[in-house]
Amino acid sequence: MTVVMPAGVQTARDLVGPAISQAVSRLSPAVRAVASYHLGLSDATGQPITAGGTGKALRPALALLSARAAGVGPERAVVPAAAVELVHNFSLLHDDIMDGDTERRHQPTAWTVFGVGAAILAGDALLALSQDILMETPPYGVWAARCLSAAVLRLIAGQGADLEFEQRDDVEVAECLDMAGDKTAALMACACSIGVIYVGGPPGLAMSLSGFGAHAGLSFQLVDDLLGIWGAPEVTGKPVGSDLRARKKSVPVVTALASDTDAGRDLAKLFGKSEPLTDDEVLHATQLVEAAGAKVRIEEMADAELASALACLADAEMPEDVRAEFAAIAEFITARQW
Amino acid sequence: MTVVMPAGVQTARDLVGPAISQAVSRLSPAVRAVASYHLGLSDATGQPITAGGTGKALRPALALLSARAAGVGPERAVVPAAAVELVHNFSLLHDDIMDGDTERRHQPTAWTVFGVGAAILAGDALLALSQDILMETPPYGVWAARCLSAAVLRLIAGQGADLEFEQRDDVEVAECLDMAGDKTAALMACACSIGVIYVGGPPGLAMSLSGFGAHAGLSFQLVDDLLGIWGAPEVTGKPVGSDLRARKKSVPVVTALASDTDAGRDLAKLFGKSEPLTDDEVLHATQLVEAAGAKVRIEEMADAELASALACLADAEMPEDVRAEFAAIAEFITARQW
Repeated sequence: MTVVMPAGVQTARDLVGPAISQAVSRLSPAVRAVASYHLGLSDATGQPITAGGTGKALRPALALLSARAAGVGPERAVVPAAAVELVHNFSLLHDDIMDGDTERRHQPTAWTVFGVGAAILAGDALLALSQDILMETPPYGVWAARCLSAAVLRLIAGQGADLEFEQRDDVEVAECLDMAGDKTAALMACACSIGVIYVGGPPGLAMSLSGFGAHAGLSFQLVDDLLGIWGAPEVTGKPVGSDLRARKKSVPVVTALASDTDAGRDLAKLFGKSEPLTDDEVLHATQLVEAAGAKVRIEEMADAELASALACLADAEMPEDVRAEFAAIAEFITARQW
Repeated sequence: MTVVMPAGVQTARDLVGPAISQAVSRLSPAVRAVASYHLGLSDATGQPITAGGTGKALRPALALLSARAAGVGPERAVVPAAAVELVHNFSLLHDDIMDGDTERRHQPTAWTVFGVGAAILAGDALLALSQDILMETPPYGVWAARCLSAAVLRLIAGQGADLEFEQRDDVEVAECLDMAGDKTAALMACACSIGVIYVGGPPGLAMSLSGFGAHAGLSFQLVDDLLGIWGAPEVTGKPVGSDLRARKKSVPVVTALASDTDAGRDLAKLFGKSEPLTDDEVLHATQLVEAAGAKVRIEEMADAELASALACLADAEMPEDVRAEFAAIAEFITARQW
């Protein structure tokens, strides 16, 4: 199955990119250089990249659609769309340090280029900016800021749980799903509802779209976990099997470990090794996760979450073309390309 | 000269401590543990510390006084006082990582106990909470949040400049003073005015107190730089000469390097060494900074900034006991104890 990126995602970058550049231009030169590099606005030497911005602009697209769901033009929601993207990038900058990831979007991560300290600060700056630009337009901007702030706190809780899971070998599937909900779904739910909130649209619509975003976000995270194990490097931008090599407690892995199968127990033994895993062991771990039934189980869960997302969408009142675009994005981000 | 901590600083901890604990209690367990440890609310194993909270509670005391300057009771400004203290601790958590500091308030720093990733997240959480608690009370809470957000962006700019200076040997005194203004004075200016803003007091009073805080904050930073070189370990909580050993580009050091004196040139040579400085070299560097005239120069600047702060204070209309308490705090934090 070939999945084509919905047109709205590209449009979002064109519409929201200038607002992000403008926000980043308020930073001091040293901090701006790191933030701009991370956002794909300039290279490591500070030269502007005219193509302007990497990444999928997925969350901004959802925020713009959210305003359109409330019956207004997408240009009215540029500020909240930019704010959500700033938060997303704050978390990427910090997560890359915590996870020791050296590559993102086929480029060296910011901390490997500028140092850990500079990357921490650039993340801090994007978080601060995200709140700052929303608060400029009370009262709805403040409501939007509160929605975003709640999502940030959940995002932090999710990443905290993720870090903590690394130290534990008794992580339960339910905890792991909570973690994914906090880490990924909360910001997605915010992106889908913040446009409605910012333009003063109906609270009921914001609630329905928040539900849509939460389910679609969880489905997206589950698929991302699957791609982290079975995804081709050209799709994921990461080396084959990197999640298993890092013994990441992703939902499929935890499901396999908790499965009460021989494969699950063998996986636990492999993960219990003190030495780094060899290439053969990573391949074997991949087979064990599948043999434990976790691949099929997570595929089913991802499908169920997508179905729940689409059900939330069906319940809400909005222009039909907007509904179709929301659905197309949900299907796009949960497509399994391997 | 013996300098006694003004009573308001202790009172502030009693009044604001519960609000900080309550804000931190909203964090997920893994993140809360790190934040609570850093704030002195619990030990490394998670046991509550009943004494409750280390640190001087200086900024909360200023925020409470700020409300009193506007003629209302200090209890009205507990939320902004807590928010300012949360921001201060966000920056300490992250700065300790960036600067590689292993001790703070005579305790191992959070990143050495819980790891870099967990300490980054705990800092992120305190920053997010600081905005969140202010936005709960529009409209003045939002004005206060914007004041704080502006201070956070300057604080980040200052820390960014500080990091960048480490890589450069041509830092100018003016840049270095800007850095100190951003890194320390901006949040102090915010603390001194946020109480007025939060209770809807006169904008002119907020401006005067912001000026007072900016000057007092810069004086404080200059004295802190001096203590970083000449301060006794029992006062600073840091090993003797640690700033010089780290070749920190503090204002006295940059002033000495830029002084066009033999001592300044000798210091530049010493700082240009590729090996770590020996104890004797650290002692020699201390003497060179003084011989270059930088100690006297920075003492004069610190005195001048304190005088400017007190002049701002004299200009503003406020109850006389509040004015006296502001002055006492400014004198307390700029006292040179060595």
